[in-house]
Amino acid sequence: MKVTVLGSSSALPTSQRYPSAHVLNAHERLFLVDCGEGTQMQLRKCNIKIGRINNIFISHLHGDHVFGLYGLLSTFNLMGRTSTIRLHAPANYDLMLRSHLSDFDINLNYQIEFVPLKNGGQSPVYEDKHVSVTSFPLKHRVEAFGFVFREKPADRNIIKEKIEEFSIPSCMIPGIKKGRDFVTSDGKVIKNKDITVPPPEPLSYAYCSDTMYFAGLSSFVKNVDLLYHEATFDASMTKLARKVMHSTTLDAAKTALKANAKALMIGHFSARYDNVTTLVEEARTIFPATIPAIDGNTYNIRELSARNRLHD
Amino acid sequence: MKVTVLGSSSALPTSQRYPSAHVLNAHERLFLVDCGEGTQMQLRKCNIKIGRINNIFISHLHGDHVFGLYGLLSTFNLMGRTSTIRLHAPANYDLMLRSHLSDFDINLNYQIEFVPLKNGGQSPVYEDKHVSVTSFPLKHRVEAFGFVFREKPADRNIIKEKIEEFSIPSCMIPGIKKGRDFVTSDGKVIKNKDITVPPPEPLSYAYCSDTMYFAGLSSFVKNVDLLYHEATFDASMTKLARKVMHSTTLDAAKTALKANAKALMIGHFSARYDNVTTLVEEARTIFPATIPAIDGNTYNIRELSARNRLHD
Repeated sequence: MKVTVLGSSSALPTSQRYPSAHVLNAHERLFLVDCGEGTQMQLRKCNIKIGRINNIFISHLHGDHVFGLYGLLSTFNLMGRTSTIRLHAPANYDLMLRSHLSDFDINLNYQIEFVPLKNGGQSPVYEDKHVSVTSFPLKHRVEAFGFVFREKPADRNIIKEKIEEFSIPSCMIPGIKKGRDFVTSDGKVIKNKDITVPPPEPLSYAYCSDTMYFAGLSSFVKNVDLLYHEATFDASMTKLARKVMHSTTLDAAKTALKANAKALMIGHFSARYDNVTTLVEEARTIFPATIPAIDGNTYNIRELSARNRLHD
Repeated sequence: MKVTVLGSSSALPTSQRYPSAHVLNAHERLFLVDCGEGTQMQLRKCNIKIGRINNIFISHLHGDHVFGLYGLLSTFNLMGRTSTIRLHAPANYDLMLRSHLSDFDINLNYQIEFVPLKNGGQSPVYEDKHVSVTSFPLKHRVEAFGFVFREKPADRNIIKEKIEEFSIPSCMIPGIKKGRDFVTSDGKVIKNKDITVPPPEPLSYAYCSDTMYFAGLSSFVKNVDLLYHEATFDASMTKLARKVMHSTTLDAAKTALKANAKALMIGHFSARYDNVTTLVEEARTIFPATIPAIDGNTYNIRELSARNRLHD
């Protein structure tokens, strides 16, 4: 699992920070989360294969999370895309998007499968062999959603030398990987744990933007390996943060701590901060394993998580 | 007059080229021409004062010329803008824009004065003390417009030493600058040309994107100092260019030659060209004073024009 930050600014972009967008690579599936203006250019700069994105998640309908979508959908078309794209977004966006595309006379050669996000609580939104995605409510000025991406536990890995040692037929291997013991032709039971090793721990990544602090949030992102959480403001601006329903550094850190996240990435920085070092330092007073989201950087979630487990 | 290229790509941006947008600085007025995705970020990277843009011109309603507008208008708002912005665009965009802003719950604290572009021929769209702007029709798949920006002739410059020499009272100076002779207290007539020097030649800049070649176009951009003309394709792709109603390098160069432009800038390059040198070389076979539009570069129109006048 690797996440690439395409934009770390809040609504007002700077020369260094683009509006919100992350790409998660989980088992070579690319999930685009939010799509601020310039997302397609950032994808190109990061050498990410645009055509391999099949799922887009839109957290809420504020322009700095959406305005890159029209260009990206047009670009898919110009690149000859024919495969369906699944768009997970607040329900009322379906009509808005279609009317906007028709205004601009954009006739797509592929389908958009619109998947409305569901109010109320945690809700499964995507699942395949390796990954599942759940949405959950945030608290913002408009209806907003967070997402957790979780790897499914992988099969155990068989130890190659044991195949030869016990003459294990290949038809038995899938079962052994699932945890079965092996019985030799002379009836001897070989314990599964003696011929396999456990797979790496499944990883998880949560995306929370935009939201004010609320106690229940940590339960939605419990134990994630990497929590991305907005921190638009420093702690001295708590009053403004509450008013506009955003978070401070300390809000993000508190949620990470309560959730027992392994690492915290803060972003969605207000344009007032040229340098975000002080924001990171502030969050670290509560949650030491905090890093800043930096445009164009790719983060290895296993490494971030392992680094912090060492500190446990 | 200086023009900054914010985007030189056609519909499919590349890691080096953003979608269409130019900023013209004429007498410290900033005119934004087209507003492709990422325009506001490019403005920041070029250190252009966003708040000083008061007029935006949209050539036509294809996304790669418009999709940066929503973000820019939101940014004006977040920056506290209160002064009216004049938006010159195809007539049907008024309703589309307002419906899109309302969809995203964007309530602007400033007015947008929508100025619909007029069909049919050349049409004055803007005028102040120093600059006038005319729109004219292009030929594209949708209704499209080009623009010519012309400086007005400036007053003559009075020679400072002559004020003392002939004891010219300051109340006479404005008239002399307009071309009047000066009569001394003892009735002697001093010819205007002996106490003034002519002002620099007024400059002009034309913007033509997107369009296929048509004979009448050159008459709309007659004698301009800098003609920006799209050249999406090289000459070997003339058939495709005609089909999608775009221009080749040679189309752009022919129009520049027929128009007696002093310099030609080509842009709106297809993503198929990593390097545009061969496109420029091709255009130069017909119109030697051709340069490529390069993202982030600012071009001094007097210098470009003078360089070519030397070659005359």
